[in-house]
Amino acid sequence: MIRISIDAMGGDHGPEVTLPSLLRVAERRPDARFLIFGREDEARPVLDRLPALADVSDFTHCEVAVRMDDKPSQALRNGRWKSSMWKAIEAVKDGEADVCISAGNTGALMAMSKFCLRTMADIERPAIAAIWPTIRGESIVLDVGATIGADAQQLVDFAILGAAMANALFDIERPTVGLLNVGVEEIKGQEEVKEAGRMLREAALETMQYHGFVEGDDIGKGTVDVVVTEGFSGNIALKTAEGTARQIAEYLRAAMSRTLMARIGYIFARDAFQRLREKMDVRRTNGGVFLGLKGIVVKSHGAADEEGFAAAVELGYEMVKSGLLDKTRATLDLYHARRPVAPAGAVSNA
Amino acid sequence: MIRISIDAMGGDHGPEVTLPSLLRVAERRPDARFLIFGREDEARPVLDRLPALADVSDFTHCEVAVRMDDKPSQALRNGRWKSSMWKAIEAVKDGEADVCISAGNTGALMAMSKFCLRTMADIERPAIAAIWPTIRGESIVLDVGATIGADAQQLVDFAILGAAMANALFDIERPTVGLLNVGVEEIKGQEEVKEAGRMLREAALETMQYHGFVEGDDIGKGTVDVVVTEGFSGNIALKTAEGTARQIAEYLRAAMSRTLMARIGYIFARDAFQRLREKMDVRRTNGGVFLGLKGIVVKSHGAADEEGFAAAVELGYEMVKSGLLDKTRATLDLYHARRPVAPAGAVSNA
Repeated sequence: MIRISIDAMGGDHGPEVTLPSLLRVAERRPDARFLIFGREDEARPVLDRLPALADVSDFTHCEVAVRMDDKPSQALRNGRWKSSMWKAIEAVKDGEADVCISAGNTGALMAMSKFCLRTMADIERPAIAAIWPTIRGESIVLDVGATIGADAQQLVDFAILGAAMANALFDIERPTVGLLNVGVEEIKGQEEVKEAGRMLREAALETMQYHGFVEGDDIGKGTVDVVVTEGFSGNIALKTAEGTARQIAEYLRAAMSRTLMARIGYIFARDAFQRLREKMDVRRTNGGVFLGLKGIVVKSHGAADEEGFAAAVELGYEMVKSGLLDKTRATLDLYHARRPVAPAGAVSNA
Repeated sequence: MIRISIDAMGGDHGPEVTLPSLLRVAERRPDARFLIFGREDEARPVLDRLPALADVSDFTHCEVAVRMDDKPSQALRNGRWKSSMWKAIEAVKDGEADVCISAGNTGALMAMSKFCLRTMADIERPAIAAIWPTIRGESIVLDVGATIGADAQQLVDFAILGAAMANALFDIERPTVGLLNVGVEEIKGQEEVKEAGRMLREAALETMQYHGFVEGDDIGKGTVDVVVTEGFSGNIALKTAEGTARQIAEYLRAAMSRTLMARIGYIFARDAFQRLREKMDVRRTNGGVFLGLKGIVVKSHGAADEEGFAAAVELGYEMVKSGLLDKTRATLDLYHARRPVAPAGAVSNA
């Protein structure tokens, strides 16, 4: 049995989308159980319409719902201890749930997750990992926006977290890991990135293959299973790729409707276009995973529809099932057992 | 008459591509004149085959050709004063040419350009500007990789440089300018970016409209005419977008050849696909422009074919024709006349 706590109020559509999504998950994963947190007046009527979901769920009323535009500090001030978001996270901390899913606002969810769950031992900062569709399949990219900037040790930590996730999710024994950089010329590259590369090479961990530096165009190629970068560049890469995909879809739509011949061609190739749309469908890879905390939290896109939110829930389910936290802990222990003891501060300043 | 100096040896294909490209430009721009620098034994035979080009060109033999894999320091050591790349840049410095084009390696070209031309007064660092196709047309993105990191003053300088280029190239009187950032939440954003935003808002320059922060997906939308960021993020955004475009083209090819119906549809919609290919054709926007130097240098993609290299040459031509350097100088003077005098170091540390 996998126990999943749900912030029913998160996202642009709230319980009207989140709860029907859970029914889809319940049908596909019979061993999933749900702890649902939300406002009685909004969530309960939806749940009452879905008896098959109610059978595998516990509902807890929470007065407060964090708003999509609350700043993290506001959300903490108004929503700590009592909001549906907080309660869903707390269920993981208290061992009542194995994983928490919310489509609520990212800043608030990260602030509450850090405050409530705390980071794992040996991890200074959590990261947000995205699943990125590539020509070869899927890769993991992190950090896509938990924090701005990262020193060498934090980048190494991200590599360990990402490799454990790739191992759990893609079932790859030694995932390949690359550090995102801007080229191989001597003047290029951030010092932290170069230092992290040296550290990963020296550590020679059995749980990953350190590939070296990769550039922006390597992400879509699927050159490595895990792409590591700090949150500013990672977020810009993610958003830029989303923007480019939308832009090309727009070009394609315009090209296919411009002439009669093109419209006829479109009719013949309808199935092919459908297949392309599915390939480019963000719902299939919906969900930013918070890594490095003492518990797993998955952030769904706020605008996700039922299938999109269900994908985020199933992502959380899979990671519990495949033992993400234990795998992460094992690699961290391996790394720290091997690392020579350095004077305080020496590593991150190196 | 526009005088263009050419490093004929640059790029993956050297004179076999660069010189025939110039003939295309000569046919389309009758007032263009070329100063061609290259090895006698490699470039001269090609030039002899193109008498219409030879008529509007001067050829100068240079013993040394900078290699595509030379490190910048190597290139400077071996190629300064005597390579075709150096000589082409020097022609701009000496006032013999209005603009220099090279498809040689970026690091070497930037190192030599800085060393030979020096930065404009009030500009600490040059930037590389890319022309980015968007849903609405084209935008300018800078810096896409001249240097790693930038303080607030340098970001403001990039905004001024980029706005002058948009004014010259797109003929927009007050281009809109955005600072690339990761969101609007309080915990988000680099300090330098926030400070640059304050400085641009206060300066209220007549030569641009400061729009505020933009995110990665705003680039492809064409939200602003000029997107400003430091070189690490800018390079990652550019490469990631290129990778995503190639990835989707790959999906599309696979989808269109998978079934008979799709292949029939493709035949009907051939013109539409051709149009899409043209939209996505990087050759149309080939050329990274070095801004902030006392002279204009355009870097063509090393793998550019004849039409691609010709596009880079014509980009340089257009910027001379529209008075890029004078426009840049005018905005810089406006900015510095208005800026309150601050104690040394106060601005960049603010």
